[in-house]
Amino acid sequence: MRKLNVAMIGGGFMGKAHAMAYAAMPMFFWPAPAIPVRKVVVDVNQEMAETARDRFGFEEASADWRAVVARPDIDIIDICTPNNSHAEIAIAAAKAGKHIICEKPLARTGEESKTMLDAVQASGSIHMVAFNYRRTPAVALAKKLIEEGRIGDILNFRGTYLQDWSADPDSPLSWRFQKSVAGSGTVGDIGTHVVDFARYLVGEIASVNALVKNHIPTRPKQAEGVDKLGVGGGDKNAERGPVDVDDEMLTMLKFANGAIGSIEATRNAYGRNNFLTFEIHGTKGSLAFNYERRDELQVMFADDIGDARGFRTVYTGPAHPYGSGLWPIPALGIGYGETKIVECFDLCTAIVTGKQPSPNFEDGYRIALIADAILTSGESGQWVDIA
Amino acid sequence: MRKLNVAMIGGGFMGKAHAMAYAAMPMFFWPAPAIPVRKVVVDVNQEMAETARDRFGFEEASADWRAVVARPDIDIIDICTPNNSHAEIAIAAAKAGKHIICEKPLARTGEESKTMLDAVQASGSIHMVAFNYRRTPAVALAKKLIEEGRIGDILNFRGTYLQDWSADPDSPLSWRFQKSVAGSGTVGDIGTHVVDFARYLVGEIASVNALVKNHIPTRPKQAEGVDKLGVGGGDKNAERGPVDVDDEMLTMLKFANGAIGSIEATRNAYGRNNFLTFEIHGTKGSLAFNYERRDELQVMFADDIGDARGFRTVYTGPAHPYGSGLWPIPALGIGYGETKIVECFDLCTAIVTGKQPSPNFEDGYRIALIADAILTSGESGQWVDIA
Amino acid sequence: MRKLNVAMIGGGFMGKAHAMAYAAMPMFFWPAPAIPVRKVVVDVNQEMAETARDRFGFEEASADWRAVVARPDIDIIDICTPNNSHAEIAIAAAKAGKHIICEKPLARTGEESKTMLDAVQASGSIHMVAFNYRRTPAVALAKKLIEEGRIGDILNFRGTYLQDWSADPDSPLSWRFQKSVAGSGTVGDIGTHVVDFARYLVGEIASVNALVKNHIPTRPKQAEGVDKLGVGGGDKNAERGPVDVDDEMLTMLKFANGAIGSIEATRNAYGRNNFLTFEIHGTKGSLAFNYERRDELQVMFADDIGDARGFRTVYTGPAHPYGSGLWPIPALGIGYGETKIVECFDLCTAIVTGKQPSPNFEDGYRIALIADAILTSGESGQWVDIA
Amino acid sequence: MRKLNVAMIGGGFMGKAHAMAYAAMPMFFWPAPAIPVRKVVVDVNQEMAETARDRFGFEEASADWRAVVARPDIDIIDICTPNNSHAEIAIAAAKAGKHIICEKPLARTGEESKTMLDAVQASGSIHMVAFNYRRTPAVALAKKLIEEGRIGDILNFRGTYLQDWSADPDSPLSWRFQKSVAGSGTVGDIGTHVVDFARYLVGEIASVNALVKNHIPTRPKQAEGVDKLGVGGGDKNAERGPVDVDDEMLTMLKFANGAIGSIEATRNAYGRNNFLTFEIHGTKGSLAFNYERRDELQVMFADDIGDARGFRTVYTGPAHPYGSGLWPIPALGIGYGETKIVECFDLCTAIVTGKQPSPNFEDGYRIALIADAILTSGESGQWVDIA
Repeated sequence: MRKLNVAMIGGGFMGKAHAMAYAAMPMFFWPAPAIPVRKVVVDVNQEMAETARDRFGFEEASADWRAVVARPDIDIIDICTPNNSHAEIAIAAAKAGKHIICEKPLARTGEESKTMLDAVQASGSIHMVAFNYRRTPAVALAKKLIEEGRIGDILNFRGTYLQDWSADPDSPLSWRFQKSVAGSGTVGDIGTHVVDFARYLVGEIASVNALVKNHIPTRPKQAEGVDKLGVGGGDKNAERGPVDVDDEMLTMLKFANGAIGSIEATRNAYGRNNFLTFEIHGTKGSLAFNYERRDELQVMFADDIGDARGFRTVYTGPAHPYGSGLWPIPALGIGYGETKIVECFDLCTAIVTGKQPSPNFEDGYRIALIADAILTSGESGQWVDIA
Repeated sequence: MRKLNVAMIGGGFMGKAHAMAYAAMPMFFWPAPAIPVRKVVVDVNQEMAETARDRFGFEEASADWRAVVARPDIDIIDICTPNNSHAEIAIAAAKAGKHIICEKPLARTGEESKTMLDAVQASGSIHMVAFNYRRTPAVALAKKLIEEGRIGDILNFRGTYLQDWSADPDSPLSWRFQKSVAGSGTVGDIGTHVVDFARYLVGEIASVNALVKNHIPTRPKQAEGVDKLGVGGGDKNAERGPVDVDDEMLTMLKFANGAIGSIEATRNAYGRNNFLTFEIHGTKGSLAFNYERRDELQVMFADDIGDARGFRTVYTGPAHPYGSGLWPIPALGIGYGETKIVECFDLCTAIVTGKQPSPNFEDGYRIALIADAILTSGESGQWVDIA
Repeated sequence: MRKLNVAMIGGGFMGKAHAMAYAAMPMFFWPAPAIPVRKVVVDVNQEMAETARDRFGFEEASADWRAVVARPDIDIIDICTPNNSHAEIAIAAAKAGKHIICEKPLARTGEESKTMLDAVQASGSIHMVAFNYRRTPAVALAKKLIEEGRIGDILNFRGTYLQDWSADPDSPLSWRFQKSVAGSGTVGDIGTHVVDFARYLVGEIASVNALVKNHIPTRPKQAEGVDKLGVGGGDKNAERGPVDVDDEMLTMLKFANGAIGSIEATRNAYGRNNFLTFEIHGTKGSLAFNYERRDELQVMFADDIGDARGFRTVYTGPAHPYGSGLWPIPALGIGYGETKIVECFDLCTAIVTGKQPSPNFEDGYRIALIADAILTSGESGQWVDIA
Repeated sequence: MRKLNVAMIGGGFMGKAHAMAYAAMPMFFWPAPAIPVRKVVVDVNQEMAETARDRFGFEEASADWRAVVARPDIDIIDICTPNNSHAEIAIAAAKAGKHIICEKPLARTGEESKTMLDAVQASGSIHMVAFNYRRTPAVALAKKLIEEGRIGDILNFRGTYLQDWSADPDSPLSWRFQKSVAGSGTVGDIGTHVVDFARYLVGEIASVNALVKNHIPTRPKQAEGVDKLGVGGGDKNAERGPVDVDDEMLTMLKFANGAIGSIEATRNAYGRNNFLTFEIHGTKGSLAFNYERRDELQVMFADDIGDARGFRTVYTGPAHPYGSGLWPIPALGIGYGETKIVECFDLCTAIVTGKQPSPNFEDGYRIALIADAILTSGESGQWVDIA
């Protein structure tokens, strides 16, 4: 069985999720497409890199990502750093002929994303962008039902991503609130997950018309080298710095296939934690999903008999996408980890088959163009076509 | 106790609901502000008027609404007819000095609504438009919590009204699909209920930006004098006539107070029956409501203690608005009837106190302007300010 | 159309519900089986009787139920008094040849109930006991699906009725806490509703094995002539009197047809308001119901296709039992009132057809025997067979 | 950081879950109490052992558990085999001075469990029984709230565990349907999880009174060496063998502290997948949990203000038990894996601190006694005291 040596750049909670997936993927999907080997983990701080090595079970630690990218024994570069470093690392990795998985959003802008796409297309790398939520089995089931025509032609899509970790004006000034690092706020951070759902499930988006808004213009600064987020985490008495990104976005959508839709995303929705939802109405039925109850897909078929029509609460299990690799009984429990294990499975499959996975940098680039268009429309108040 | 003689124009299911409310209101709210007397019911067809009299417990039947409106013994004109006759009847009733309750939407357009508003303002009538859903106790509780500042300043509003009774292309060509009678489709029929929620709970709407769409351009014609609606009700083999109204609308909203929001309404959402919802995020908490589970309001307070934060599922009862008049225990059961009983209570209270109820024709007119703006924006693709 | 003159004995919130049903039933079910006429309302206090007359729209008021029962113009005696007076009134009514609807439970004990059953059987009266919850359309749908064999043979039944209005030790000493008036506590008051569901949906109960418990042995006494209930209603400083009934019951069930089951009822379940539920598993599917969300029945069919199996959330409407008489769209809203309107429809139908309705005094008697057996088993700790 | 060498006996889906936990635990809980090392995996079939080694990332494979148990370099014996082999392996492991984690139920009977408890008590081993569900953060939160007195004294407990994987009479004759291997059916397999909840959250159980029933007396035999389970997995045409265990159990409970309760468990509940629930009512509030929506705990406090009382839907996250080690935002997603990662963390903590974890073999033994009592009561129809 082929081994694939992984170099993971950056840590944080994403490092945890990715490392777990590398270790667990073959346990779930067996025979595995390949065995990922946790070779080297990189952090700009050597001490933190060594801690990450011990914690995440990597063989080596390094503070020099360029050196690591250049190593001939590395197969996969896994980019878990803040958004502003994605492009530089990915382009270097592509030039070195590596396969790449990059955390979302692909980059800060469409333009920046395009440089990454150009690089991987030139190098022939396998490339993937980590919009993991579409790998929730219930979301993959929605895709399957749509592809099989079981809800007919799609009329509309409504998606939301609501969180509350930044609703407190005293929650700290993370890099996620700084345009130079993050590119945008809610739009890029969570709105793009819903855009990924929309493209995956309905099809290409032709144009958008958006409202984009900042609610909290300053936040408490954090000490150098620290980056916390979340309710209650801030220091009320700390000096405050400017937030130059959006807290909330609303957009209407026109799809290329004629469907219409909307997306709402905010990190200021008290009581919503990871309320990533969609509802889709078709000419033969409907689907609804809420990631907070991610074992379930709501499925309605118009031709169900008269006195027993209604949304079915389908718990995903062995009969559903990825089911053979996951747990033997529905509702045994899909967590965040499982979405990352499936992602890892699809990445390794792509590498051994040589067939690009989805979403890849092409998708990441198109999503970035849509994010750009949302921001542009938010300023102009006009419909903006996607290039 | 003062008696108020009611003349009800038109029947259908609304006649049932209103008649029940007239009979039941004093049973629920005692001492009642007044005793409504079901004096006369009007239908253009004399035989149907007499049936309505027997069925709905009125003293008299008539086929001549003009004659009834002119009767000096009538206090209240209750308009339950299709939208295209609202203005003529209401203006005549106002000229005759009657108090008026008119089913929603107030009229087919803002302009037509304005003629009605002018008439009641000239006559000094008490006037009400029957957006009954805001009288669901859980919605009234939302209003109370907002007014008391318990969720802070409102950041946004998201409302939906999803039904599926017209999703079947063979459901019949009711008057609700004909612009000349209805004025518009989903926008006026159900979208206006959400607009009413938005204005009631958040405040005046300053501008809108909408998508408006027809999905099903023709439907089977019905026999003369018949007007059915609903899934499965149509005759596939009947001649088809054109639908010239919208099936679906999406709109973004800017409120005068700076909040933003969105509304989605459709009658083509398979599996949704009366899915009238809102979610509101404020600087101190959130609210969420779904009429399909109308005994409940979801309430979240940001300052709840750390390990016990979350939406509370509050079942309305005696401790809530209108609670003293309704049932003695929460969840004993609020149905459509109760919303109409409360509406009748508020109408009678308004008449005996001389203080206009809400929503009144002023509200109905403003809602009609917003509906017009949604339709205009749907054509232009531009933000449209509300006059 | 035949008219049926009603004399209602007792008021309270039940008087409201019944009076509304008499007024509204023909509005909903037309042509009505008969037109109920609110002839006379009785209260031991003449002044309260007159208030009830005005409030509930009766023609006359009386303080003498015996005189009313004797009146030849009365067709129906409607008993809404506390449990200890049911037998005396019902027996007198039967002797006078009246049709009778009696609030639940039928009487304080099986023995007392038997005297009532004997009386109505001797007189040939139509008789009904007001277990209204089975007339919720979703419950009637469950019955229909079971009768049609759509969930196969029933394996088990689990029912609960959880409330919290007496959870506060300072909630007042209502008659519902006094054995001499109520007969029992939770068992008779709410447990019997679940027993009614069990018999209606599954079949006759053969034996029970129960735990019965009092949690709060004393409560604040109320002033003479006052009888409030509910959280927060009590006077902490008032003299306390003994509670000699149960606060909670658990019972296991063996049905005559081999199914098994359980019932839990309590009025001390903080956070549960009217949590009347059942879940039924059969050899071909399952059903689940919660009255707090009473527009819905959860329906699961075992033979649904592999990737779309799950409980369907069916909202009742025109396609379901009683649907033609109720509202034109599912989820428009079933409240407590609608259950009573349906009950009135079935009572009047029974009277005009001469065919006993269900549940009638025979059912009420059998339910009383089961309640007795639960109390007996609660003391003995043994299985108790139902006679 | 101390390393702990693990020998895992047996595989199947439990092997996957445990292996993942060994790999992932330090990634989540850092600094980890110890680093588990996947040293050797054992299967009676050498080839399957080698496959398990490669798949689950162990260093070695063996077909001889006795030899492995005797190895001096092994710290932990992890028993994932069918129930009938637990005792022999555990006793040998204890004699060899190993720490032990054993899958649930501890053994087939109380008597058998006692031999295991005696062995570990004699050896001084750290011992744990893998009732993992109590390590769901929402369940641990329930424990915390109860211990802090926030719902007052507990009045009752209602637990269920409903599945449907054996509802089909043609699902195969797994060892789980054979008393000689499994000890019992639903009682031991899933009922014991609820018993674990009851003891953990409420306290020791004093006596039980149960109904125990087999619904499907024969099932299709499987080929030698194969053991599948689940709907649709069976061969209708295969020879059938006898099922000598229970399919369903109901029991009433009396706790030593005066609380009462009930448990229902079945694997024949169509539409329920992993419906492991509890509801607890106390004198100051209530709790409710459903593992199918395991990120959530429903929490109700009686002293919440009058118009905002209701169950709070609390999504567990960093503010809750185990939160610092899991995901940074509530509802990011707790799956089955996370429960096992937490279990592994608690096991390793116990070993390095020398303090027995909970539930340990003492708990496993007491749970086995309760399972025995349920079976005994199911036959006798009497209350059975727990020794």
